[in-house]
Amino acid sequence: MTNSNYQALERYTAQVLLGDVWNRPQLSRRDRSIITLSVLIARNQSAALPHYLDLALDHGVRPSEISAMLAHLAFYSGWGNAMAAAEAVQAVFARRGIEANAPAPAAPLPLDDSAEQRRHAIVERKYGAIAPGLVQLTRDVIFQDLWLQPELSLRDRCLVTICSVIATAQTAQLAFYLNRAMDNGVSRAELSEVMTQLALYSGWSSVYTALAVMKEVLESRPD
Amino acid sequence: MTNSNYQALERYTAQVLLGDVWNRPQLSRRDRSIITLSVLIARNQSAALPHYLDLALDHGVRPSEISAMLAHLAFYSGWGNAMAAAEAVQAVFARRGIEANAPAPAAPLPLDDSAEQRRHAIVERKYGAIAPGLVQLTRDVIFQDLWLQPELSLRDRCLVTICSVIATAQTAQLAFYLNRAMDNGVSRAELSEVMTQLALYSGWSSVYTALAVMKEVLESRPD
Amino acid sequence: MTNSNYQALERYTAQVLLGDVWNRPQLSRRDRSIITLSVLIARNQSAALPHYLDLALDHGVRPSEISAMLAHLAFYSGWGNAMAAAEAVQAVFARRGIEANAPAPAAPLPLDDSAEQRRHAIVERKYGAIAPGLVQLTRDVIFQDLWLQPELSLRDRCLVTICSVIATAQTAQLAFYLNRAMDNGVSRAELSEVMTQLALYSGWSSVYTALAVMKEVLESRPD
Repeated sequence: MTNSNYQALERYTAQVLLGDVWNRPQLSRRDRSIITLSVLIARNQSAALPHYLDLALDHGVRPSEISAMLAHLAFYSGWGNAMAAAEAVQAVFARRGIEANAPAPAAPLPLDDSAEQRRHAIVERKYGAIAPGLVQLTRDVIFQDLWLQPELSLRDRCLVTICSVIATAQTAQLAFYLNRAMDNGVSRAELSEVMTQLALYSGWSSVYTALAVMKEVLESRPD
Repeated sequence: MTNSNYQALERYTAQVLLGDVWNRPQLSRRDRSIITLSVLIARNQSAALPHYLDLALDHGVRPSEISAMLAHLAFYSGWGNAMAAAEAVQAVFARRGIEANAPAPAAPLPLDDSAEQRRHAIVERKYGAIAPGLVQLTRDVIFQDLWLQPELSLRDRCLVTICSVIATAQTAQLAFYLNRAMDNGVSRAELSEVMTQLALYSGWSSVYTALAVMKEVLESRPD
Repeated sequence: MTNSNYQALERYTAQVLLGDVWNRPQLSRRDRSIITLSVLIARNQSAALPHYLDLALDHGVRPSEISAMLAHLAFYSGWGNAMAAAEAVQAVFARRGIEANAPAPAAPLPLDDSAEQRRHAIVERKYGAIAPGLVQLTRDVIFQDLWLQPELSLRDRCLVTICSVIATAQTAQLAFYLNRAMDNGVSRAELSEVMTQLALYSGWSSVYTALAVMKEVLESRPD
């Protein structure tokens, strides 16, 4: 885009995206990178990935965090998205000389047993009879395995999941993960700015749909 | 993905996707292939198509069924998806030496006249005044033509449609097609496992949104 | 697609898409092009873009209108979609010798102050406390800047937005933009045919979800 045929898109990219939103102090560039990558992966927008992977690494997202995002988004947004993104990640890592450094597998994070038992009981009561295989997989693989892998923090997994849910129009799942995000340290001010960043990358429509849910969640919480 | 930068995604692919879900006895690999292809086509995820087209053909999905899925998903998920998928299909068919064998056009399946008249009457009453062209096209092209083409069974068309509806977050259309699937021979146990397969390829969020609808549909049926 | 492996998709493309829908008199081919491009861009379906960009230019959509659509859809459907589409647009413009002709920046359209104040007051009251940054950006950048750029008419921006909202399953945002479209000169008959065109390119499921909203909007209006 080097000519005036794109002057509107270029002007907004310069003034709004780069000149304003990415510089706002309410959220770090590292978090903005995680948000942006999550949208691009959950929507299978591979063309833009190399640029934003470079940006993410420059802004302090660790390679192991990016790899963990791939697995997390495989489950939340579908395997095809993660496999397509893995190719882009591999190319960027290779270009930057990021080595595979097979670490000793880290111990999983401790499970919050009582919260997980409450979650599972609710899902089991609702869907145990109609989808027993999925309910079991949700417990064994999602909440007692994936979420406990230490390469990506609980807080960051919440951000990634919220972005995936909003970017793929899965509004009915949003309240659960907004609450989970706040339970894991995401503040109201940060959530507010997550929505601003998402507006630019997931689109205005998707974020206004999300705001209605966020309002209800925030009003239901004492903190 | 041959190094430890992707160990989480590789581990889950080996243990959960290939080691567990694809081997479950509740649904054939043929059906799992149809489900997976439907998601990839409905979401325009062309990069993964060649691999899963090979798998589908190896698992007994006939070339004529794949071709019929393209036309079905053109209508249900948009022409652009089908045209992009057709390129991938053509390349895989050519590589495998699958010949175009212009058969005599098969006679369409018989129409269930009274069910179709009920369906049309409901849609006509709701939307005939505001979208007469679309209501007529829905009758003439979708329900009295597309669904009757014998290259893909009614049961399989139901699977394809359910996957497209879930993969594209069109929750409001789901109850109709879940009922249609059960009316055409998809059992409760199969539907349950369709959701497990979809969880991996369409993403966890989309399937939990669908479960809420499926629960209502199942509770409303005597069978 | 030159062989009988694709005969169903080819038959429907010839008979329904090209033989019927694109020729209907209720909506111009120019409008149908804008609708189709909007879906393809909002869904990041770049493979089909060159063909439909050529068609749009042949049907009278101006290059400056296409460029304005890129910026509009960047905001409504996400930056990644617009950047991917910009590459396709650039290639088609270059091939056709469409020159960048840096015009003097045109004056923005006049703002309908009282309507905008009502809109902003509603959004401010609902979301001003939880997402002040986004609410401000919505006013300053979306409604007091983007929508006033004269390269694309208000009416056409409404069409583009409706298509983006429907193609990305953002049903909750649809009523507002349907009303806005009718306030800016889109007739009931045109809206009806927008839905027919969308059925083919955004998919049947997405359009039936939209019809339920459209029915409510139409019944609530005196015109």
